[in-house]
Amino acid sequence: MSTSEFSLIDRYFAAQKLHRSDVALGIGDDCALLLPPAGQHLVVTLDTLVADVHFFAAADPEGIGHKALAVNLSDLASMGAIPAWATLALTLPKADEDWLERFCGGLFALADRYNVQLVGGDTTHGPTTVITLQAHGFVPPGLALRRDGARPGDGIYVTGTPGDAGLALAAAFGGATIIAEFQAYVRARLERPEPRIAEGVALRGLASAAIDVSDGLAQDLGHILERSAVGARLEIDRLPLSPALTASLDWDSALRTALAGGDDYELCFTAPLERSAQLEAAATSWDCRCTRIGAITAEPGLRLVRADGSAFHLERLGYDHFSGSG
Amino acid sequence: MSTSEFSLIDRYFAAQKLHRSDVALGIGDDCALLLPPAGQHLVVTLDTLVADVHFFAAADPEGIGHKALAVNLSDLASMGAIPAWATLALTLPKADEDWLERFCGGLFALADRYNVQLVGGDTTHGPTTVITLQAHGFVPPGLALRRDGARPGDGIYVTGTPGDAGLALAAAFGGATIIAEFQAYVRARLERPEPRIAEGVALRGLASAAIDVSDGLAQDLGHILERSAVGARLEIDRLPLSPALTASLDWDSALRTALAGGDDYELCFTAPLERSAQLEAAATSWDCRCTRIGAITAEPGLRLVRADGSAFHLERLGYDHFSGSG
Repeated sequence: MSTSEFSLIDRYFAAQKLHRSDVALGIGDDCALLLPPAGQHLVVTLDTLVADVHFFAAADPEGIGHKALAVNLSDLASMGAIPAWATLALTLPKADEDWLERFCGGLFALADRYNVQLVGGDTTHGPTTVITLQAHGFVPPGLALRRDGARPGDGIYVTGTPGDAGLALAAAFGGATIIAEFQAYVRARLERPEPRIAEGVALRGLASAAIDVSDGLAQDLGHILERSAVGARLEIDRLPLSPALTASLDWDSALRTALAGGDDYELCFTAPLERSAQLEAAATSWDCRCTRIGAITAEPGLRLVRADGSAFHLERLGYDHFSGSG
Repeated sequence: MSTSEFSLIDRYFAAQKLHRSDVALGIGDDCALLLPPAGQHLVVTLDTLVADVHFFAAADPEGIGHKALAVNLSDLASMGAIPAWATLALTLPKADEDWLERFCGGLFALADRYNVQLVGGDTTHGPTTVITLQAHGFVPPGLALRRDGARPGDGIYVTGTPGDAGLALAAAFGGATIIAEFQAYVRARLERPEPRIAEGVALRGLASAAIDVSDGLAQDLGHILERSAVGARLEIDRLPLSPALTASLDWDSALRTALAGGDDYELCFTAPLERSAQLEAAATSWDCRCTRIGAITAEPGLRLVRADGSAFHLERLGYDHFSGSG
């Protein structure tokens, strides 16, 4: 007898030890019953990962489980929210118990670290692995970091070192060679992104707009510009490139990867000049770098400018899953 | 240039006219910002539909859109919850605009009827169509209809006429022939299930346990029995079979289809005897039938009994998506 979908759900998804006090009923009924905190906004986001589109089907299942949650926690981070609950829809070609156990291991390790309880799941059979995870968090009303708050004169910042995950993808497709000492670092940056939750919370009341960088810094910044009806001037030589990136690619290719590589799960945000000192002081305690890379302009459009003032040309802004070519 | 995932989301998913006052920020940012009512439980459920597993890939897209939401509203109904918000993860082999428009048409028509706003979405590219919809609703604490509240002596009830959707599936696979006058009815029962929201709310304080019938009445009742640690005796000749079902199949096959056909999205629930008069009075105003079909027993297991007291043998309890054979 094959493993039924019910025992799959029961055995693996209900195995998380963490139990939050605001979960009245978790996995095992038709619905979960949850008690959101009074007076807070509920923040919800979902992301789908498709095998061999968003991850390599043969990749380490623990990393896939980590990433499925991390990309959603990154969305919560970009709103300044604190995570609480997750739900998981998992479509699988077969009921591979070893894969499931390792997938859940990676998922729960990250979930436990951020006090996130898996409260619902649905397992289905399909021709390819498709993972949809929805994350739920909270933010006080009026303090969420939205895309539409950037104003001319605001500084533009990015956390961490964008481009590392793009480098890992380029290497996987034969477009780059990574020297041995950086291989583990670069691979972890693609497979184990760390959601910038603490940084997002710290930006409440400081940032005027924020987004997480999933499709490429230039493209995602473009969403802030569009929703805020402003433009931007990026000083591309200020981009915080990792030693791994600059050691693996020539300077212009490294810049292109940082601007358009995608899969970074760093935060890109804007902040008014008068808050820059407070912001930069706060950022000194962060686990990651925080770098000012440009400024918001009243004139629409994204201008990429080198240190000498000349324009930098970027052929593609980011990755487009439908065109396949960006 | 191909249609990017962003314009797909913007154009179709953001097209819903309905705007709830408890949605502070809907589609278009990293997350939605929602304001749950104070003192209520948030009720969440999700279901995935995979093309050619849960629906025919070539089926009417409006019906697929309807069903993707309906199966989730049915889960909310089974808890006695009132629906509020939905999110949608859509994996598609290609960006087919005609399909998307009709899918959203069916989805939004049902959503508008139940005052449900689509507040988040993710569109991805994949080899086959996979639809995950999550529904969110509310129920006052202590009034949710759970699976674990059935007690010996409780009556067992079912809404509507289970088996019709199973008949439609049997006919699609060549296992049954439906006479012309019933074809539209039977097809609608499979493709356009009506969530029993009003009935679920009416059952607050009356039902002791409830579930919605998605995988077959016998199998889903089995979940109530398992979670409540009880058994049941079903008087199968009391099963409310539709004229379409009895006209299309012999009596025993009709019973088997009603018990194990699946895809009914009716409610199966239990209620203490002392509330049966109140319950049956309430049910007279419902849009659907409500039929007492048996009783909960202290002895574990599910016994199917004919009117003459003899046992009825059911080869399979319901549909198992992983085994493929039920």
